This record gives sequence, structure tokens and C-alpha cells, in this order.
Amino acid sequence: MPIRLDDRDARFAEGFAALLSAKREVSEEVDRVAADIIAEVRARGDAALIAYTSRFDALDLAPRTLRVSEAEIDAAVAACSPELLEALETARARIETYHRRQKPEDSWVKDEAGVESGWRWSAIEAVGLYVPGGTASYPSSVLMNAIPAKVAGVPRIVMVAPTPRGETNPLVLAAARLAGVDEVYRIGGAQAVAALAYGTETIAPVAKIVGPGNAYVAAAKRRVFGQVGIDMIAGPSEVLVIADRTANPDWIAADLLAQAEHDVSAQSILMTDDAALAAEVEKAVAAQLATLPRAGIAGKSWQDFGAILLVADLEAAVPLVDRLAPEHLEIITEHPERLAGLIRNAGAIFLGGHTPEAIGDYVGGPNHVLPTARSARFSSGLGVGDFMKRTSLLKCGPEGLRRLAPAATQLAEAEGLQAHGRSVTIRLNL
Amino acid sequence: MPIRLDDRDARFAEGFAALLSAKREVSEEVDRVAADIIAEVRARGDAALIAYTSRFDALDLAPRTLRVSEAEIDAAVAACSPELLEALETARARIETYHRRQKPEDSWVKDEAGVESGWRWSAIEAVGLYVPGGTASYPSSVLMNAIPAKVAGVPRIVMVAPTPRGETNPLVLAAARLAGVDEVYRIGGAQAVAALAYGTETIAPVAKIVGPGNAYVAAAKRRVFGQVGIDMIAGPSEVLVIADRTANPDWIAADLLAQAEHDVSAQSILMTDDAALAAEVEKAVAAQLATLPRAGIAGKSWQDFGAILLVADLEAAVPLVDRLAPEHLEIITEHPERLAGLIRNAGAIFLGGHTPEAIGDYVGGPNHVLPTARSARFSSGLGVGDFMKRTSLLKCGPEGLRRLAPAATQLAEAEGLQAHGRSVTIRLNL
Repeated sequence: MPIRLDDRDARFAEGFAALLSAKREVSEEVDRVAADIIAEVRARGDAALIAYTSRFDALDLAPRTLRVSEAEIDAAVAACSPELLEALETARARIETYHRRQKPEDSWVKDEAGVESGWRWSAIEAVGLYVPGGTASYPSSVLMNAIPAKVAGVPRIVMVAPTPRGETNPLVLAAARLAGVDEVYRIGGAQAVAALAYGTETIAPVAKIVGPGNAYVAAAKRRVFGQVGIDMIAGPSEVLVIADRTANPDWIAADLLAQAEHDVSAQSILMTDDAALAAEVEKAVAAQLATLPRAGIAGKSWQDFGAILLVADLEAAVPLVDRLAPEHLEIITEHPERLAGLIRNAGAIFLGGHTPEAIGDYVGGPNHVLPTARSARFSSGLGVGDFMKRTSLLKCGPEGLRRLAPAATQLAEAEGLQAHGRSVTIRLNL
Repeated sequence: MPIRLDDRDARFAEGFAALLSAKREVSEEVDRVAADIIAEVRARGDAALIAYTSRFDALDLAPRTLRVSEAEIDAAVAACSPELLEALETARARIETYHRRQKPEDSWVKDEAGVESGWRWSAIEAVGLYVPGGTASYPSSVLMNAIPAKVAGVPRIVMVAPTPRGETNPLVLAAARLAGVDEVYRIGGAQAVAALAYGTETIAPVAKIVGPGNAYVAAAKRRVFGQVGIDMIAGPSEVLVIADRTANPDWIAADLLAQAEHDVSAQSILMTDDAALAAEVEKAVAAQLATLPRAGIAGKSWQDFGAILLVADLEAAVPLVDRLAPEHLEIITEHPERLAGLIRNAGAIFLGGHTPEAIGDYVGGPNHVLPTARSARFSSGLGVGDFMKRTSLLKCGPEGLRRLAPAATQLAEAEGLQAHGRSVTIRLNL
């Protein structure tokens, strides 16, 4: 049974707080294992990668077979149906078009003191993209991670993807080819993260690592942060559907289950001001579960983490939405834009009844890599800016320096940094 | 003696690699202490804060004196000289003007499929600003951290700053007032970070924590990352000065020492193609050290971490600059823009002989919070975007959904996510 809360109940606040603080994964115990693996890869390079791949993926490699060859990628593309390749290309084109709009602008201005200032954006020199193996090996995620890097102008995009027992997903390789990935290695886990961060004989290091992974991958990313940049640590996926009496309960049920089928730790929440709708959605979820291939996973997610929040007034409930800070937010109400305009914290908003989250997962255009676990309070989905960095620029002439010198030297003096002050005044005595 | 390397020497590559990998701080051993402090503050709130402040800062507080009152801030402002307040206001105004140019744009576009997509930026709801106590308590850092948050529109900016033995820095409080900080608490260390992340009876939690601190503060920030956002973990400061024969050696020496006086772990590097200039700079450093109040610190930094890189050709040496990825880069050559245009990795670039880094530290306009320890390879200085987050938006109508449905459902099917496909197709059967 999903959690049911009504904001007219005395115990609502307590139940809502419990919903917010429910831990959906534990990963502290894997940190030591990840640390050991990283140390091994740093010390022994390719040999450590090969040993771990044999042990964890039951796959025996040599240094020259760590990398997936272009011929293998050709063969993978040839193995995909033309229809599927076309769908992938539709997604690629739409994702690229959307992300091109995100390219940041440089700036360079001369002010009234004659001082010139601005900044310049440049692409990160090399980026690693982690792609999970097995059931979580999603070609759509390859596109969503690689395309913004490509649009940013990253000159070297390296993908790592474990292939347990040598089983590859042809569509993942096709997506890598289509998105412009430059190198692909058949490694995974903390060992792949270590190889990307520190390099081995075969794999040159990168400057930033992105992409989702299991608890070991997440722990390894946290550990190598600083040596390289990382994207956010992704938690289980989640959706909040806000709906009023105008919404179709079958559609909402389908959306809640689309989220729930990802993972037993996924979370689907309905918030509505219509008790009748809530009841119909719950019935529809049960009915649709019966015919779902991944009913086991989706049913467990719905039972353990699903929630129905009945509220007196949707607009008045906006602070609750901001506290949940959902990764995905569907607004299926008569005036979705009005409600959306009131909400501060959400990774992505899907407006109106004809925008199921699944459209955004594949072909909408916006990125599907989004902040989970309430981190939409302070972070954003993946974008072009995550693959670039800004260098600030400043240029004074003799006159500009003379204008700014008094304030700078006074502040330096006040901070006890006399050499700072001297580096300014020494230039004034001409 | 600083390190001396010449790129025409056989052993240059080895020496340069050693320079890159030299560790300038060790902080792993403090992680456990930080973890314990965080756990205590989460469990006991204000009581823990008060106990740690008594122990570490020799200051006895009560819950109602944790916060610095408005009257105390008024008194601090009154204690500052009018000239100093004016210098602070000059800095504030220039920093604000520069950062206003960084405000990101929203986007909303309807494409040829009739699908609307875009994004919306919003300010983070509450931000915590850590300000170190003692000698590293810099009013300029208060401005540099708080102003971008204010420009972003953050409605609640909370500052924490330890006041060992109750000693406050009036100019730090004046800077907080001037920059629009909303709440100030006299706490520091890992306990202050924990209070900002989790909240106590007196201090409401924030969503992101920024600002430099000692090793305990850095370890605590790393630990609370995920619960809240954090800025980069700042390492010791560093400057690379690139100069040719047109540069003034005394000015360069002053700049190298301005960096070195920060901290014994700071690093100052000169790269030049002119051996005579290198020798003159070294002589000038020794001469200027003699009259520097912080000669002990600056001298030790120069001796332990200073370096002079002699190269045959400055343009050919650009790959070395990108590998160093300096926090601060001064280019004092005949054509500084030309060289700057070739460099990918630097936190901030100061162009020409009349732009000492110290101008940028205080009043230039750009932020002085910049990526250290080679992290300019993948990250940027602090900016307005660090205090905002982007929510992506997507809206399909019935026709747009129909156009995108085939590609989305095929990809969902290929990924084995039938509920995703169904959430699309269920909307087509009208």
C-alpha cells in the first residue's frame, strides 16, 4: 500500500516529514571497497582493470581488448533495426537542438574607469561517460550525457560500459557512435571510474566524469572528486504528479508506473485536491500493474515508496512541492503554467495532460539527467554548461589601475596583506 | 630555493610532472573528527554548537547569543573608518556590476512539431556563507561570496564566522551588511557547516553552503554534500605569471610575493622565455622579501613551492599552462591577448603589466573565488549561476505527442521499459 496523507489531518506534518526523510538507499558500506579498487588501479593500471573485469564481469580481457574497436561498433550498428536507428536519430536531433540553445555567451566590456573585464567559456578538454551494464544499460542515457558534451565542444569523449560475460547492448554502441563518442572501453564499476580519473597505460585520463552507476560507481565518483570533476551522485528516480479533477486517472496511473518500473527504490507520488481522482488513480494502478512485464519491480516500488497526498488547495500546497523538490514534476491541471510559475524547486516540469514524463525521457529535447533526492533545491539537470568552464578576464591600463588603486590598497592593508598592496603601488611610481 | 626548470633540459618532463603532483595539503585524517562533529550537531542542535564553540573558540554562548544582533552589526559599521567603508563600497559596486552581466536567460520555444520546450532559472531558496575566523577573515571574501548570491535573488543569505575569544572583525560585519547578508552567526568549523546543512533550534537549514575554510570545514562540506549543495573545496592559492623580456621584474616579484604571503602552502610560479628576466625576478623577490611584514610566510611559500620555468617559446609552452591549470594567470607580455586566446585552463586571466592580481582580489569586478589545485581543468570561479538552478520545461499538445510517440515508444520498448511506452500510447487512444 502506498502512503496516504491528507493535509487536513492533524498528523499530516509528521507523515510528510517522514516522506521527506525516508532513505531509499544505503551505500556507506561500499566506500571502503571503492577506495581499495581505486588504489589498485592507480598502482597497477591495466593489470588491475583486467583482474577486476575478470572477477566482477566474468570477462577475460587483454590490454588491447579493453577498448571496443571501431569494427565492433560498426557491427553493433549493423545489428540494430533501421526503425530503431531512426528513432535514435530522432531523439539525437531533438536533444541536440534543445541543448544548442544552452551554449553560454562570452562577455567583454570596458567600463567608465577604462578597465576591461569579462569572461570566456571553454570546453573541458576530456570527459568520461559512465554507462551502466546489464538491465540499466540505456541508449537514451548515452545520448543525454554525450550530446551536451559534444555541443559544448569537448574534443575527447570517452565512454566506459561494463559488458558482463561479454554481452554488449548493440543499441548502446549505436547511440555512442551517433552521439560522437570518441573512445569506448568495456569496463565498469569503481575500476572504470578510477581508470578515467587517473589513467592507465591504455586509457588516458579525463578531466570530468559523468553518468549514473551503482553504489560502487557512486562511491568511486565521490572519492575521485577533486582529481576530476563529477556530475551529481544520482539517487533513485522519482516523479510527483500534481493533478486536479480535470485529469485522466488512467494516464496518471500509467505515469506513476512508468516511474515505478525503473527500480524498486523509485518513487511515484500523486498530489491532488480531488479525493475521487485519488481513488480512481489507485484503482487504475492496480489494474495496469496486472499486465505490466516489470510488475514485480513497479509493484514493489509503488508499495514501498508510492504516496498519495490529498490537499485542500493545490496552490496552497506549493510549499510542500518545494520541500519535495521532485526530480520530475508533471502538472496535469486546468492551468498548468499558473501552478508551474509558483514552484521554485523541481528538476523538470512536464506541463499538461499530453506531456507524459516518458516523452522527456527520450525525445522531448530537455535532458533526462536530473537532480534526485531533493537536490533540485540546489542543482540543475545536466546541460551544456556542465561540460564547459568559465575563465574570468581582467585588463587595466595605467589609468584604470590608478583609478582602482586607492580602494584596493586600503582593503589589502585592512586585511593585513601588505604584499598585495605593494603589487599595486609599485606600478604607480613611474 | 624555488624549483627551477628549463624545457630544453632532458629532465624537464620529470621535474614538471613532480611540480604538478606535489601535494600541498593533507586533510584525510580530519575526516573522522568532522564526521563526529556533524553527528553531534544533528543529534543535539544548539547545545552541540555551544559546546564546540566553547571548546574550539574559547567563547561561551547561549542559544540567543549564537546570532550576531543587528545592533552589534550597527556598532561594527560605526567602528570602521569612513575611508575603509568607501573602499568597501567601491568594491561592492564594481563586483555587483560585473556579476549582473552573468544573470542567465530563460528560454521557451515552440518547435515545428508543435512541442514547446525551454527552461527557467530560479534562485536557491537559502544559502550559507562560511567565513573563516582569525587571520583568514577577509571582508573581500564576504563580498565575493555574498554579492553573486544577492544578484541571483537568493532570498535568505546566512553567514557563519567564528569569533575566537569573542574577537570580531568589524570590517567583516560591515561587508556582510553592505552585501545584504540576512543572518550572521558567530560559529565556525565543522559544527557551523553541520548547523547550516541540517539546522538547529536557532538556525534554519540552508540549501547550499559556499566559502573557504580550514581542513575541518572542507571535510565537513564534503560530508554534507548531497544533503545540501557545496561550492568547490578550496585548496591553497596559486599564481602563474607568464612574462617575456618586456616585463618589469620588480612588478613580477611583487605579484609572486602577493600570492606567497597568503599561506605557507601558496604557490607562485614564473614562466618566461627570458633567462635574464628570470634572474632579475629572483633577485627582486629576495630584495622585496626583506621589507615584507609577512616575510616569514611568503618566504617559506616561495622556498617550498615557488618555481621558475624557463621555456624556449611561450606559445609552444601553452600545453604546460593547460596542465598546470592555474587558479590565477597573469600574462605580462607584448601581446597578452594573443597568448590568452591559446590557453584553455585557467581560473582567471590578468592581461598586461598593469593588471596585478591584487586588483582582481578586491575591486576589479570578477570573482576572486576561483578553482585551485588544477581544478580549472573542469570548473569555474564562483558566479551568479552557482546560486541558481535551472528547471527544464516541456509541453506537448495532442498533436505534438502524436508526432513524437513512435520514436519514444520504440526506444522504451528497446530498453525494456514497457510502462514508459504505455504512458505514451494510452494517451493516443482517444
